[in-house]
Amino acid sequence: MLKLTHRASGRHFLQIPGPTNVPDRVMRAMDNATIDHRGPEFQVIGKKVLSDLKKVFQTEGPVVVYGASGTGAWEAALVNTLSAGDKVLMYETGHFATLWKKMSERLGLNPEFIAGDWRQGVEVSRVAARLEEDKQHEIKAVCIVHNETSTGVTADIAAIRRAIDSANHPALLMVDTISSLASIDYRHSEWGVDVTVAGSQKGLMLPPGLSFNALSDKAIEASKSSRLPKSYWAWNDILEANKNGFWPYTPSTTLLYGLSEACDMLLEEGLQNVFARHTRFARATRRTVEAWGLEVFCANADALSSSLTAVMMPEGHDADKFRKIVLDNFDMSLGVGLSKLAGKVFRIGHLGDFNELTLMGTLAGVEMGLSLAGVPHKPGGINAAMNHFVETSKF
Amino acid sequence: MLKLTHRASGRHFLQIPGPTNVPDRVMRAMDNATIDHRGPEFQVIGKKVLSDLKKVFQTEGPVVVYGASGTGAWEAALVNTLSAGDKVLMYETGHFATLWKKMSERLGLNPEFIAGDWRQGVEVSRVAARLEEDKQHEIKAVCIVHNETSTGVTADIAAIRRAIDSANHPALLMVDTISSLASIDYRHSEWGVDVTVAGSQKGLMLPPGLSFNALSDKAIEASKSSRLPKSYWAWNDILEANKNGFWPYTPSTTLLYGLSEACDMLLEEGLQNVFARHTRFARATRRTVEAWGLEVFCANADALSSSLTAVMMPEGHDADKFRKIVLDNFDMSLGVGLSKLAGKVFRIGHLGDFNELTLMGTLAGVEMGLSLAGVPHKPGGINAAMNHFVETSKF
Repeated sequence: MLKLTHRASGRHFLQIPGPTNVPDRVMRAMDNATIDHRGPEFQVIGKKVLSDLKKVFQTEGPVVVYGASGTGAWEAALVNTLSAGDKVLMYETGHFATLWKKMSERLGLNPEFIAGDWRQGVEVSRVAARLEEDKQHEIKAVCIVHNETSTGVTADIAAIRRAIDSANHPALLMVDTISSLASIDYRHSEWGVDVTVAGSQKGLMLPPGLSFNALSDKAIEASKSSRLPKSYWAWNDILEANKNGFWPYTPSTTLLYGLSEACDMLLEEGLQNVFARHTRFARATRRTVEAWGLEVFCANADALSSSLTAVMMPEGHDADKFRKIVLDNFDMSLGVGLSKLAGKVFRIGHLGDFNELTLMGTLAGVEMGLSLAGVPHKPGGINAAMNHFVETSKF
Repeated sequence: MLKLTHRASGRHFLQIPGPTNVPDRVMRAMDNATIDHRGPEFQVIGKKVLSDLKKVFQTEGPVVVYGASGTGAWEAALVNTLSAGDKVLMYETGHFATLWKKMSERLGLNPEFIAGDWRQGVEVSRVAARLEEDKQHEIKAVCIVHNETSTGVTADIAAIRRAIDSANHPALLMVDTISSLASIDYRHSEWGVDVTVAGSQKGLMLPPGLSFNALSDKAIEASKSSRLPKSYWAWNDILEANKNGFWPYTPSTTLLYGLSEACDMLLEEGLQNVFARHTRFARATRRTVEAWGLEVFCANADALSSSLTAVMMPEGHDADKFRKIVLDNFDMSLGVGLSKLAGKVFRIGHLGDFNELTLMGTLAGVEMGLSLAGVPHKPGGINAAMNHFVETSKF
């Protein structure tokens, strides 16, 4: 049996902004034998998860499931809908928006990247202005990251939809919800999104290994004329097989068992309750960061993330040294600062299967780490989180 | 599949003083098929756990394993060594010492119960005086609870051994280590204990279901002339079968898988490290209790428990109402006050598979519960635990 070399007592605190802690119920659900993926028992599970996913994505349309990481689902969104040289409008919200843009270049697309302030997120007016300008409708798709995992800054997807509509622009709207789905309210149909990209390992509380495309009719229509080469990612074969609860190629059976259980858990709790829980944990976290006298990276009060909080390291202190101290002393993994934020921020994940006391342990680990790393801060900041929980208590 | 009715996000905080949280490694080890308990594969496991247990009990002698709760192992200790009407000297340290005394009455023994102050624990001089008096050697056994789970007060077992020896008294020494084994230093051989009683569900990090008697030569000798009726509990058949790694009747196979893994974990960490970890968590807990302005139930500085802390509820406040508020709001179970302490104390378990951040979550849950229950206390007491961890940090 695999034994991780590090023997620490108690559970590791996995407080990166995903992959998140997999609940025992999901672990138990996955701990079942692989079955015939063309058989009748599988069909029941296949139909169930495809139906459940619609509720989670808040869509009436189909959701395509890939055995792949979220990066694969980004690629699927692009290759199914676009053709070589197509212009796509992207917005620099952070590390992951930048990676999506680089991917589009590698695939032979022509991204136009609106330079952005990572601390502010998407200024919708700039997207609107660019679409208004584009009278020739050269822009074929607008690609936005809903929740930048590298920064903890969200984008107002409904407002972007309105901007597209106001410009009477036919561009597709594609949204990355990898670190927001099932954590932050997200409405594929109501917000008129054409392709939603998501992964299994964050709010869905699963291990990595599955990713998703939720589709609008318009996206499906676009896929019929798209000329980028595609085979593994091609929606058409998958949608056809999915009608009967199957996949055209071997699906990740045990991850689908887990997905079924995770959807049950989310729907039992109620999606709105799930979102409210994440909001509450995020507020408690920010109150603590402020009480420490540190700065939340997100500088836009309307764009604060409920699934993670990126915290700025005071000048002269290295976030990675701090994270190592936390890991060595308190067996907790915090999120690293990515690309230009390397060493400058650390990220606290508070999404997925999580509760008040685990957040308190997390924040205590951060506060003790700040002390041990000699990072100036006001001690006792975690009391602010306790105050928040007491003020918003249920009983 | 069993689904607990309560759907809370994240892991339940099981902070009673046992049963404790079962680590994933132990869960995985138990999650294997039942095998032939008379077969060669079982024999390897049987021999291994019987050998490992000697290290955990710090004994060279045999350790008998029962499929039973700790209460069963108490009974086994008595019925294997004593005869009807035998006088046993017991000490009222709390609820569990009292239960053991009641059991001895039901079994036809003649307990002499030294009335004790539950907050002070065993006054060894009183045991010594009673043994000195007993020139006829009517007392056949001295039965002591090492760590009173109901109070968080420990007894000095080595000192009791010295008292027996000073009196040149032949009484057997029997010790209940149900909530101390593998949490608080305990040395069966070095301290000259004749029968050590233990259970699986505390420091051993297993589910309930196994219990233990560690035996001295003298105890085995006594079992040969003991006349209390016994069959299930009889050591002789078990010791005979154990020589080959088997049991005379069906052993709890999957719990033994878990026991093997738990012993591996304890021995990998090193027993002294395990004890030091528990001591550190207990100190952090007590510093926090004091910072709240509340009182630790144990009033004897030499008898403080490392596996749990019982906290006195201020006059006019009900510990059980408080515990309910904590459970309802923060999904944490704290230990109930037992018999005469009902409603007057709550108990924080900090034993078993546990770490700094889980303790911080635990203490935060207590502090928030105190606020919600309107129990007077100084807010921010948990900062004292953080200070303790920072001052005693490893790196």
